[in-house]
Amino acid sequence: MSATGEFELIGRISAAVKVPQGTVGIGDDCAVIPQAEGLDTLVTTDLLVEDRHFLLDGIAAYDLGWKSAAVNISDIAAMGGRPESAFLSIALPSGLADREAGGERWMDAFMRGFGELCAKHGVALLGGDTSASPDKLFINVTVLGSCPHGSALQRSGASPGDLVCVTGPLGDSGAGLKLILEGAASDTDEKTLLSRHYRPEPRVAEGLALRQVPGVHAMMDISDGIASDLGHILDASGVGAAVDTAALPLSPELQAVCQARGWDAVELAVGGGEDYELLLTVAPSSLSAATEALGGKLFPIGVITAEPGLRWEGGKTDYKGFTHSL
Amino acid sequence: MSATGEFELIGRISAAVKVPQGTVGIGDDCAVIPQAEGLDTLVTTDLLVEDRHFLLDGIAAYDLGWKSAAVNISDIAAMGGRPESAFLSIALPSGLADREAGGERWMDAFMRGFGELCAKHGVALLGGDTSASPDKLFINVTVLGSCPHGSALQRSGASPGDLVCVTGPLGDSGAGLKLILEGAASDTDEKTLLSRHYRPEPRVAEGLALRQVPGVHAMMDISDGIASDLGHILDASGVGAAVDTAALPLSPELQAVCQARGWDAVELAVGGGEDYELLLTVAPSSLSAATEALGGKLFPIGVITAEPGLRWEGGKTDYKGFTHSL
Repeated sequence: MSATGEFELIGRISAAVKVPQGTVGIGDDCAVIPQAEGLDTLVTTDLLVEDRHFLLDGIAAYDLGWKSAAVNISDIAAMGGRPESAFLSIALPSGLADREAGGERWMDAFMRGFGELCAKHGVALLGGDTSASPDKLFINVTVLGSCPHGSALQRSGASPGDLVCVTGPLGDSGAGLKLILEGAASDTDEKTLLSRHYRPEPRVAEGLALRQVPGVHAMMDISDGIASDLGHILDASGVGAAVDTAALPLSPELQAVCQARGWDAVELAVGGGEDYELLLTVAPSSLSAATEALGGKLFPIGVITAEPGLRWEGGKTDYKGFTHSL
Repeated sequence: MSATGEFELIGRISAAVKVPQGTVGIGDDCAVIPQAEGLDTLVTTDLLVEDRHFLLDGIAAYDLGWKSAAVNISDIAAMGGRPESAFLSIALPSGLADREAGGERWMDAFMRGFGELCAKHGVALLGGDTSASPDKLFINVTVLGSCPHGSALQRSGASPGDLVCVTGPLGDSGAGLKLILEGAASDTDEKTLLSRHYRPEPRVAEGLALRQVPGVHAMMDISDGIASDLGHILDASGVGAAVDTAALPLSPELQAVCQARGWDAVELAVGGGEDYELLLTVAPSSLSAATEALGGKLFPIGVITAEPGLRWEGGKTDYKGFTHSL
């Protein structure tokens, strides 16, 4: 979700609309709507536009279905919620649904990818809308989830002294995209990176576990790269951070491919997007509990500071975020 | 929502996903998701595509915003729910947001129309997504609402002997569209019909009132015209109906314009879409209670029969539904 600018006007128009106390609107991974009996409903919606977010000939129908579900389920995970239901709207260019690839209709393969990722996380497809499209393919997915009232981990909770952590290796998806744009991947390591780009795994179990660790203060998912995404946590929390680039977790596959191709692995880890790992801040006294909750898979990469701004240590200092636009 | 065909595959894939008892998925106006403490959450989503559902130069930005909210809020009204929150995704062609009309940015006018209709019905915009579009304008809106557990009025509840009723005049919006396609409207009556097309009023208060009348068995909103929409109730309920075309409520404006232009008012009332009145079936013994609940504004137009099929009485017998496609 990123519509803050265009939606500002609504704030003035709808000032008269009363929402339940504790409601979170535009500006975090999900909206949070308090329900009766101690539950909050989480809602997220993401729009995927051909030639902006993906190239139709550059991604298999199955993978596009998978990814359309994954990016939304990841937003629920990013607040520590349990994803529950999905709503899919799709505008199909003429002839696309029935196009055959690998002996399967395009639309069937798309729905198979979408459905398998949903089923993996217990998410039921409960509705949607289809339309013909005069030109490009458009996909909009809404996912609903829930968490105990008041427990959603927002971006605004970071405190000076917190450790900045991630739940897994960074840069794999960005390297996968780079391989796609530069030509076909060849060896096993490169194919692993492609798969990380095409079929991201939303960290639902990790988010649920982290939400139950006292001392985890702020969380979001990494869609644009930590340079950009950590900036959102810092802005929302009114703090700064120092990140040690030498501490960034890098997969063996990323290191091997970067060595072979002369790429800067740290640059990909910092600025490559779409890893869909979780980015969080945790009080130092809770680090061991949080690490244990994830079976060891938690990687401290920096520290929150009272002084604003994002500082890189251990290497270059001018890393930039990634945007989804091609 | 109309995605039953393409989404069938999902039924097989997601058979393993357990949903709460009482959940209603694809195939009605909204999905219904039981919550704790006696409440059901209603969810609906609609996709509006330029050149399929609207012509960008044929509708003012304010009206398009209004209508995008209205068609979804009407789906909540159609089940007797209270609409509560909205999520707006919009993919904008280059330059559109800043295009000026009447001294206002296009996007500001769109958001004003969207926001004013939402505010009128107590709906808060809680999220969304924006993107550039390489070509056409795409809008997807999701609206959430609620109703007491098990009380949502579905399409499947109609019983033989029920009276078929509507909450207001039919055909105005269809006549408005006809005026747009045939050239500018001139007199006051014609402008009224245009306004009915551009700014439909979702029948939220009516839906809430009807849901509380025992004996109201099935309900939906009229988006494609009663010929088509009543067919959905009949299919879902496994019944038939006989409709008296002489009983269809026609506005004075529609009658005047049809007389002046030589149009068939009944044909517009039956097959013109987008009236967004409610279509319901009610036991004869409850008709007076239902009528009273609406302050008299309930119009019986036919009767549900055990024999399947839709029969027209009092005139032509071959009326067809309307499709949204231009």
